[in-house]
Amino acid sequence: MTVLVASALIRPALEPVVPDWLDVRWAADNAELLELAGEAEIGWFDSLSKTAMAETVRRAAGLKWLNSLYAGVDGLPFGLMAQRGTILTNGSGLSATTIAEYVVMGMLTMAKGYREVVRAQDRHEWLGDAPGRGQLAGTRALVLGFGPIGQKVQRMLGGFEVAVSIVRRTPGEGFLTPDQWRARLGEFDWIVIAVPATAETDGMIGAAELAAMKPGARIINIARGAVIDQDALLACLRERRLRGAFLDVTTPEPLPPEHPLWDEPNAHITMHLSGRSQKTVMHEAAVRFLENLERYRRGDELAHRVDYTRGY
Amino acid sequence: MTVLVASALIRPALEPVVPDWLDVRWAADNAELLELAGEAEIGWFDSLSKTAMAETVRRAAGLKWLNSLYAGVDGLPFGLMAQRGTILTNGSGLSATTIAEYVVMGMLTMAKGYREVVRAQDRHEWLGDAPGRGQLAGTRALVLGFGPIGQKVQRMLGGFEVAVSIVRRTPGEGFLTPDQWRARLGEFDWIVIAVPATAETDGMIGAAELAAMKPGARIINIARGAVIDQDALLACLRERRLRGAFLDVTTPEPLPPEHPLWDEPNAHITMHLSGRSQKTVMHEAAVRFLENLERYRRGDELAHRVDYTRGY
Repeated sequence: MTVLVASALIRPALEPVVPDWLDVRWAADNAELLELAGEAEIGWFDSLSKTAMAETVRRAAGLKWLNSLYAGVDGLPFGLMAQRGTILTNGSGLSATTIAEYVVMGMLTMAKGYREVVRAQDRHEWLGDAPGRGQLAGTRALVLGFGPIGQKVQRMLGGFEVAVSIVRRTPGEGFLTPDQWRARLGEFDWIVIAVPATAETDGMIGAAELAAMKPGARIINIARGAVIDQDALLACLRERRLRGAFLDVTTPEPLPPEHPLWDEPNAHITMHLSGRSQKTVMHEAAVRFLENLERYRRGDELAHRVDYTRGY
Repeated sequence: MTVLVASALIRPALEPVVPDWLDVRWAADNAELLELAGEAEIGWFDSLSKTAMAETVRRAAGLKWLNSLYAGVDGLPFGLMAQRGTILTNGSGLSATTIAEYVVMGMLTMAKGYREVVRAQDRHEWLGDAPGRGQLAGTRALVLGFGPIGQKVQRMLGGFEVAVSIVRRTPGEGFLTPDQWRARLGEFDWIVIAVPATAETDGMIGAAELAAMKPGARIINIARGAVIDQDALLACLRERRLRGAFLDVTTPEPLPPEHPLWDEPNAHITMHLSGRSQKTVMHEAAVRFLENLERYRRGDELAHRVDYTRGY
């Protein structure tokens, strides 16, 4: 029988629907995952710790297929997996809707100064004037990355009369290519970062890019903390060159309590919650896995396969 | 010469563009408005106090045309104005975009539990789990009122895969009429109240309507506090029958510091800021007024005229 080693995280969604021909070993925690790793032909090792996942993969010498709930699979030992011939499938697109909703929420709450409204309610204070006077209507947004999240953001912003420019690798009408967007940075009120986490996107927003942005622009990052040079960003926010940064991701995570970003008035820290602010992703991930499982059994090509060279 | 009496509120936007043939008397405050009222052929008496506006109108015996920045002109002495033949034009639609943006922000922040994220950042606490797991995608919204705000909300929600049903007086495909929506209340996740403030809409959401809503539904009110029976709403929120109320408007305004709504965990109080969270409305109101002024000079029909019988 084919052995699947799966973590506790996915058990509630997967256990009721798993087919008979699969011998599933459920791991209660990261320690059990490590113990069971050697038995796995198929692995679904997702845990909230990327380090634990990577360690489990290293131990899983007989692993033919690793599935993940997450879109971001950076941190896994791609070289070793490629060498062993392990196939990797990921959760790209599964959380795109909820993350895109979070992006628009970030834009709206920054524009309207909504945090000040929340704090005023907590003080029982009826504000006499609006803490934020921005509108989305009539503004321009640059979306870096045109995966499922970038596409949803574009669709959502259409209803708000925001002019959206998209950066993607494949050239096309209305798109900017990776060598074009830097020269255009000064045109945008919003910079939405939705790129995959790869060596290429690491540090892609550095001091030079930040300096080239329109004064008063705002950034939304739901990709990875490492995409932005965080120290340079903090300096920009302190100088009020940029008016806001909505950071679902930071370096490191969790951000330590003494980190200066917490108290920076124009930094909005949302604790990597954007993709978790929904109830359906586990179920959808289980459905996607079952479809792939059927392909695996038939010896067909799996869907949502990660290219180890690109990194997504 | 034609005398315009105008308040301090509109002076910065209007003074630079006012035509020569108009003799403008600028009132620095509500007391001066009252003093100057008797001289006004045209009046633009907007102040933050509706009582002061109404009192000024009563004193303005020679007033032929009253213009207002606001969409909601309830509280003015319509009977007296009709009797005197005073024309009233209002600001319907001027703030529709910013108010509609506020509505969507309210839906998103409630769905994601964003207030808890704000409070956690203030505590420097990295939340381990999402405080809200709602998505807009796949939900159903009922929009009461199909003026400029309701129309913008509908367009914006289209990008979020929200199924929107609209209530308006004029029957039509995809619309519910005022005698149809009550029977359908149980179908909606969101009830957006965007009706004009009239005798007819006063108290239109009472205990019976609240009881008929889907358990866990959320309300957004950007119309007038009086449209909802606020005590009945508070009881519903306390019983957790409804999951949230995003109240830009309350009874009374300002809400006194000791009012129980402030501390109700599912009440989101936004202090009538939705229409003020923008920078362009004064300018747009001045432009609209100048266009009407030209019509007035030519003896043409004015645009955006309020019907005293309908009340909007």
